[in-house]
Amino acid sequence: MRKISDATITRLSRYYRSLARLERKNQEMVSSKELAQTGGATSVQVRKDLSCFGQFGTRGLGYPVCQLKETIAHILGLHRTWNVALVGAGSLGAALISYKEFKRQGFHIVAVFDKDPAKVGKNKRGLIILDIKNLPEVSRELKIDMAIVAVPKTEAQSVVNLLVQAGFKVILNFAPVNLMAPPQVTIRNVNMAIELEALSYRLMAN
Amino acid sequence: MRKISDATITRLSRYYRSLARLERKNQEMVSSKELAQTGGATSVQVRKDLSCFGQFGTRGLGYPVCQLKETIAHILGLHRTWNVALVGAGSLGAALISYKEFKRQGFHIVAVFDKDPAKVGKNKRGLIILDIKNLPEVSRELKIDMAIVAVPKTEAQSVVNLLVQAGFKVILNFAPVNLMAPPQVTIRNVNMAIELEALSYRLMAN
Repeated sequence: MRKISDATITRLSRYYRSLARLERKNQEMVSSKELAQTGGATSVQVRKDLSCFGQFGTRGLGYPVCQLKETIAHILGLHRTWNVALVGAGSLGAALISYKEFKRQGFHIVAVFDKDPAKVGKNKRGLIILDIKNLPEVSRELKIDMAIVAVPKTEAQSVVNLLVQAGFKVILNFAPVNLMAPPQVTIRNVNMAIELEALSYRLMAN
Repeated sequence: MRKISDATITRLSRYYRSLARLERKNQEMVSSKELAQTGGATSVQVRKDLSCFGQFGTRGLGYPVCQLKETIAHILGLHRTWNVALVGAGSLGAALISYKEFKRQGFHIVAVFDKDPAKVGKNKRGLIILDIKNLPEVSRELKIDMAIVAVPKTEAQSVVNLLVQAGFKVILNFAPVNLMAPPQVTIRNVNMAIELEALSYRLMAN
């Protein structure tokens, strides 16, 4: 299978949500044009994205809503649940534990770690904060699949090193810093300032 | 000027950070290849992105680090500060107030609003929570440029309606829901579950 871009995967997530909405409205078929409108792309892009994964639609009839939704769920791993470790029990960590959309899509934060002895043992939104030293064993015991890094930027690389050593293959990083990891490890960065920069660009351009 | 894609703007933010790093190391010139490596793109992509905004490099010599960084700062509006309103004083709101990278890039959260009477008047990380009813006047008085929506998904559309009425042109939305706004208003959505889905996809594909 050819290499699928991150942008395609992000659009699949959007199509999935559009399909879920259409399914709730009992709509049976959807055109690439309609999916494009709700997913923020062009109909050519929708057809190209979906063709990466097989032949789903029928010319003139479109795509079957329910079936395409299930197919995308299997591609993205939304048909099952995932155990997630959160590193960093600060205010961003607290917000992530409370973020309901994670659980709704099957992502369960099952453990939260911090290195601050003053925090370890305390309850954070229903989870006991664990010592980061215990991350490797706890991750094995709880069969944790992925990790979220929500620590200050100065701490992020050492946390990533620990996660890599513990065998994590995928990491979502919120620290605004460039991180190094071996090629077999995927780090996805969320930088909220970059999101605002896309908006200040709009204000500058107008 | 032709339409610049959101993806190009996001990459400009990445190039900006790479250039800032190189500047701190006193590097004077940078090739598109080097910018591509640190910015996570190809050198063809870098040249294409930058060519949208003018002619910056010299064949064989590359781009002048300091000058290109300043040019991108002006394109993205990073050479000045922006006043930001935050709507929603929950745990995500608290995390956003504490997120240092915003201020570092010139985005100052100057007011936080909530509709919950139990929260209004309380101090949240140094800001007094204001009644959402006062958003239009406060936004005018404080010359607020952009808004962040960090409310539950059921509240998000009514908050966006209020922001649009108050004259906001750009909105960063964290609620995991599709929002409607007039075409002259740009809404940028951050859905943290979609970020995790890109990672579960990797685990499924391996």
